[in-house]
Amino acid sequence: MTQQDHKFMQLAIDASIENVKNGGGPFGAVIVRDGQVIATGVNRVTANNDPTAHAEVSAIRAACAKLGTFHLQDCVIYTSCEPCPMCLSAIYWSGIGSIYYGNTAQDADDIGFSDKFIYDELATPVARRSIPVHNIMRQDALRAFRAWEEKEDKIEY
Amino acid sequence: MTQQDHKFMQLAIDASIENVKNGGGPFGAVIVRDGQVIATGVNRVTANNDPTAHAEVSAIRAACAKLGTFHLQDCVIYTSCEPCPMCLSAIYWSGIGSIYYGNTAQDADDIGFSDKFIYDELATPVARRSIPVHNIMRQDALRAFRAWEEKEDKIEY
Repeated sequence: MTQQDHKFMQLAIDASIENVKNGGGPFGAVIVRDGQVIATGVNRVTANNDPTAHAEVSAIRAACAKLGTFHLQDCVIYTSCEPCPMCLSAIYWSGIGSIYYGNTAQDADDIGFSDKFIYDELATPVARRSIPVHNIMRQDALRAFRAWEEKEDKIEY
Repeated sequence: MTQQDHKFMQLAIDASIENVKNGGGPFGAVIVRDGQVIATGVNRVTANNDPTAHAEVSAIRAACAKLGTFHLQDCVIYTSCEPCPMCLSAIYWSGIGSIYYGNTAQDADDIGFSDKFIYDELATPVARRSIPVHNIMRQDALRAFRAWEEKEDKIEY
């Protein structure tokens, strides 16, 4: 851990503590590029009625808005807690190159924030998951994919 | 598949096709409660510079905003394509009870939208993942969790 790593993680931790005072969950994240803080995010799930408003997702949205891009390949994320599967997937989609975290998933579980169920579900074959999943109307749905293939000015990612 | 399922999936598919015309990705989703459409979402990743703006995440955010809740336990999601790990996790966090999808993950892969890499990474132990992950400053980070535990008026979820 470098001095910079310490400084940026401290910012994420400070944000997580401040967010508890502000009626949010105890989670904060900071996105950094070239030694500069690009954006901070905190958990606003209950405060904003948004189940996707975890600290990491919020930070990714804010960083992309600030930089005017949908790809953060030169960035590092410092998050006060190990990312849940949603946030980890969002990190992969964003192209962030490195993750630092403080609290472990087990620490989060110990205070009632468990993502183990979701990790387990993702590792379970679709037919045996707890949520019913039905594949219907595939031939109709494929029309959008054909339209995409035929579009000449599309932005791929 | 009931007539209602057909109707709602058709709406999701129509949204996915319309979104290609509007400069977005070929994905649409509709969230339904008690036979009523609550919200629609489409993929606006490149259009809005938001790597988390997949159709399902967008629909969940819109549905929660509309209903003024962070939990969609009585809702069903119809999505034009099998959810990626981020969206599937968001569906679990939202409490949605059932999923209908059209295109398969393989269909999406065939046109350049692959989430197989992310599913594989999630199933890989942290130390062997392609993205470097570092656990630092856990004792400092735990302070936010202690603050959470001590907070008397917190909203748990």
